[in-house]
Amino acid sequence: LVSVLSSAIIVYRLPWTWKCSKLLMKFIHAGLNTIAMILAIVSMVAVFEFHNSKSIPNMYSLHSWIGLAALIFYSLQLFLGFVVFLLPFAPVPLRAALMPIHVYSGLTIFATVIATALMGITEKLMFSLQNPSYSTSPPEAIFVNTLGLLLVIFGALILWMASRPHWKRPPEENAKVLRPIGGTPEGTEAESTMTDGSSADKSELRIGNEAARKQNLKLDEAGQRSTM
Amino acid sequence: LVSVLSSAIIVYRLPWTWKCSKLLMKFIHAGLNTIAMILAIVSMVAVFEFHNSKSIPNMYSLHSWIGLAALIFYSLQLFLGFVVFLLPFAPVPLRAALMPIHVYSGLTIFATVIATALMGITEKLMFSLQNPSYSTSPPEAIFVNTLGLLLVIFGALILWMASRPHWKRPPEENAKVLRPIGGTPEGTEAESTMTDGSSADKSELRIGNEAARKQNLKLDEAGQRSTM
Repeated sequence: LVSVLSSAIIVYRLPWTWKCSKLLMKFIHAGLNTIAMILAIVSMVAVFEFHNSKSIPNMYSLHSWIGLAALIFYSLQLFLGFVVFLLPFAPVPLRAALMPIHVYSGLTIFATVIATALMGITEKLMFSLQNPSYSTSPPEAIFVNTLGLLLVIFGALILWMASRPHWKRPPEENAKVLRPIGGTPEGTEAESTMTDGSSADKSELRIGNEAARKQNLKLDEAGQRSTM
Repeated sequence: LVSVLSSAIIVYRLPWTWKCSKLLMKFIHAGLNTIAMILAIVSMVAVFEFHNSKSIPNMYSLHSWIGLAALIFYSLQLFLGFVVFLLPFAPVPLRAALMPIHVYSGLTIFATVIATALMGITEKLMFSLQNPSYSTSPPEAIFVNTLGLLLVIFGALILWMASRPHWKRPPEENAKVLRPIGGTPEGTEAESTMTDGSSADKSELRIGNEAARKQNLKLDEAGQRSTM
């Protein structure tokens, strides 16, 4: 689940995807997130069935509360992302306004999922390691603790990649890839202008008056903001 | 600890601190972080003494491993922050290069501390709630779970505030506050130019040639990057 989520997050930062069209990248992003959602629901159902079969109460732990909250926000994120960014109906200003919120919630949900996993690992170790107990540090405890530590390092790396503005898909590539398709369907063109604003920068740099320059800075700022 | 850490993070985002000089803001930031560090060390020592007095092994749980890792990185962060950003010896390009890393590590350490707290809460509930057990959801369990959920919401809010570029201290205030001091000590002036680059923008906007404009955009980008 965490690895699929991570792939969905960094797909816009991988140089090999820069060769894809913007629309294909968005489909990969949406597809990976849908897979992650299915995995999350399957594991949720598995936990409930396991609890019911062993007559363990459901949803009593902090791990389950925060996990359920993350799942609810994640489904909201997926639904809004689909309606606003994938369907061609939302106007460009709405997309531009929602993009920083979409990026922030995505990364926050990712961090929350990692925290939930860490709490789950803690619970599992305390339940299962009884003889020898967890507190005597048997090899199993050391192994699982190391996995937990690696999970934190992995999450930190993904957040680093996702928050670097210079690891963003370069705007020139955008124009190069979109032009040859011919006709440039309105939806995709609008999106590419909206999401980073820098392609608009390029053409306006030629105008060279004060107003245009101020506009440039504003658009540039919006572009930075959209990648967090 | 979490609240002091949060205050240290958002001090640059609070409108009332914008009236302070840049240097005073940095002192508040460094001071709050020093207090948080002292609290972290005191609580660490308390845990070790509690474990020793009850003959419980130390550092066996994932909670303790990740907590110790966070503390080590936090002390490194504090030391580097002091040497590079507070002492007047580091050259401006070094500060500009390290600022995005400083911001990223600060926020990542903050998120890790919250995850550690959640694991600690999980452990404590499982150890202490025996009769009635945690799994029967006594009022105490509901209460502490709610506190844990609020901790996640609080952390998410702080990360939202810290990552909004338009909640940054406005660059005009910078200039206004620094000028009247007279003489403008070299250190502070260099810092203010370095950290957001936008005060340089203002004066260079007057030049109005292509090269200066490109420079502006670059500086502006660096400014955005420095606030993540």
